[in-house]
Amino acid sequence: MISDRLFTLREEGDSVLILDQTLLPHQVATRHLNSLADAAHAIRAMLVRGAPLIGVTAAYGVALALKDGAGNKALLQACETLAATRPTAVNLHWALARMRGRLLPLPVAQRRAAAWAEARAIAAEDAAANRQIGRHGLALIENIARRPVNLMTHCNAGWLATAAWGTALAPVYAAREAGLPVHVWVSETRPRNQGLLTAWELHEAGIPHTLIADNAAGQLLRQGAVDLVVVGADRIAANGDTANKVGTYLKALAAADSGVPFFVAAPLSTIDRDCPDGAQIPIEERDGSEVRHVGGLDRKGVHATVAIAPDATAVANPAFDVTPARFITGIVTERGVCAPGELSALFAERA
Amino acid sequence: MISDRLFTLREEGDSVLILDQTLLPHQVATRHLNSLADAAHAIRAMLVRGAPLIGVTAAYGVALALKDGAGNKALLQACETLAATRPTAVNLHWALARMRGRLLPLPVAQRRAAAWAEARAIAAEDAAANRQIGRHGLALIENIARRPVNLMTHCNAGWLATAAWGTALAPVYAAREAGLPVHVWVSETRPRNQGLLTAWELHEAGIPHTLIADNAAGQLLRQGAVDLVVVGADRIAANGDTANKVGTYLKALAAADSGVPFFVAAPLSTIDRDCPDGAQIPIEERDGSEVRHVGGLDRKGVHATVAIAPDATAVANPAFDVTPARFITGIVTERGVCAPGELSALFAERA
Repeated sequence: MISDRLFTLREEGDSVLILDQTLLPHQVATRHLNSLADAAHAIRAMLVRGAPLIGVTAAYGVALALKDGAGNKALLQACETLAATRPTAVNLHWALARMRGRLLPLPVAQRRAAAWAEARAIAAEDAAANRQIGRHGLALIENIARRPVNLMTHCNAGWLATAAWGTALAPVYAAREAGLPVHVWVSETRPRNQGLLTAWELHEAGIPHTLIADNAAGQLLRQGAVDLVVVGADRIAANGDTANKVGTYLKALAAADSGVPFFVAAPLSTIDRDCPDGAQIPIEERDGSEVRHVGGLDRKGVHATVAIAPDATAVANPAFDVTPARFITGIVTERGVCAPGELSALFAERA
Repeated sequence: MISDRLFTLREEGDSVLILDQTLLPHQVATRHLNSLADAAHAIRAMLVRGAPLIGVTAAYGVALALKDGAGNKALLQACETLAATRPTAVNLHWALARMRGRLLPLPVAQRRAAAWAEARAIAAEDAAANRQIGRHGLALIENIARRPVNLMTHCNAGWLATAAWGTALAPVYAAREAGLPVHVWVSETRPRNQGLLTAWELHEAGIPHTLIADNAAGQLLRQGAVDLVVVGADRIAANGDTANKVGTYLKALAAADSGVPFFVAAPLSTIDRDCPDGAQIPIEERDGSEVRHVGGLDRKGVHATVAIAPDATAVANPAFDVTPARFITGIVTERGVCAPGELSALFAERA
């Protein structure tokens, strides 16, 4: 949590209060989730986004679903509904499997309270893991002598994408606390422009940053304007191949071509041990209207959408791409930094 | 010229009629250039864009400048004014050097008529060169057995960027004439969205195409959805390094990583023999408002601009990047297809 005013999700009575990220950076507004349907909609329509936060929201979605009955059928249907909201991020399935595993063995009468407790635990663990990611990632920034350190990121893997602290931005926040000057290159991240969420986060935290079109990343890397690239992840395969917001792979290629280190920051829950490599990760295809339209503020400062292409224009809109492990310098988890090929050792420690 | 109705630039009396490309694809509107100032503005504000078309417009700009006197001072000042409009595309300097070289030796009284004739010749030669680029590039498409051929391009290097036919899209038009089915992946090309110009061109020509966010190019290449990539160029160094619209380099990296051929299509006038390599090419930095704003049609179908980021947001906006020759399979000119390393042989033939 960067400040008390700013949070992604918190409990409020028997409902869940979320920050509606579709209105950012233009408006800071919260919304109550009162039901399974509310939670599923919030994930599907991207009111909450970011792999860790999707997992936390899904966990609370299960708790909300049990309000009206906590039998096996209700529990399993809630998990199914939530699992179907988005296909790529593995944290969603991880959180739901954990909720199922915790709740199914319990007597029905105890499930509701246990669901809230477990969702709360998942959120707290996410925040703690991200805090650790920040501390481990801080060493990457400290290692670079040039000041200020120029870090490039993609999409938003800040506190907005998590219960707190963020993943890719956790080292940036840790660096600020450590007094290290950092400047962040922020990619717009079309089509949903989540880079603007990152710019907003950094602005709120007073951290220098520069917005760029996604296309500009290669040129900046070639110019030597970037010291390291840090991105989040939606699913990391056992071999280290990483699915993240579409466009990540292009940055990894450009970083490799310029000899700039490229790191993925994610909690252990983002690692899918059952997925041998990136080719097995399903890639979400989202609606073409996201590409045809851009939202922002009109001349009067009112939120508006403009069409950049006619509705009839054919569109492809993959939401993620896969960066092969060979382009990834290291993966930062709450356990520390490891090479993509060393993920299995991490599991051994964990078991 | 794809049809009589659609053209980038034509003479009309003693003025020049241009298609105002800043209004496309939402509105097809022409505008008269009556003076040097009009021509310089049209290039600077990107009413005309595309390296070949910038060259042609600059040549006509010299002719327009001589209306009010054709002495050495007027001629050289006109060339200077036009040369300062945009820094990266070499065709601009090539066209101006040609105008100067043709006009300076002439008696002042003959210069005005000669300027119009020379500008006309430059336009005609550009169209003819692009026609040849189309014919040579057609072979690249014919070589791919799979049908329809999936071609990816970036920005707009179609007829809108030239006197006629285009460069990167010339092979596509030639393929259509030859009866080969082609489908084109069209990158949005933020921040100015010139990909929408490409989508509009292809729509007008009835050629199947799909719009994508710039970020999606890597994912599509990895999926095997692309048979070849063809882009235009703003300046090709003697060693084959190529400056083109920012984001081109990322596509070249991704094409190389997937083993997909990557071609640059450009007339010989785009090759800068005096520039040894890409590091010497100046990269235009454009105004940050281009990144902060997106233009399109509002809900009423009226052209509108929305701000995606506050005005205070720091922005970097390099308009071009440089693709190293090692990622370029071949360069298509009006003389044929050659490897980037064989450009000097092309000059030998030409001399």
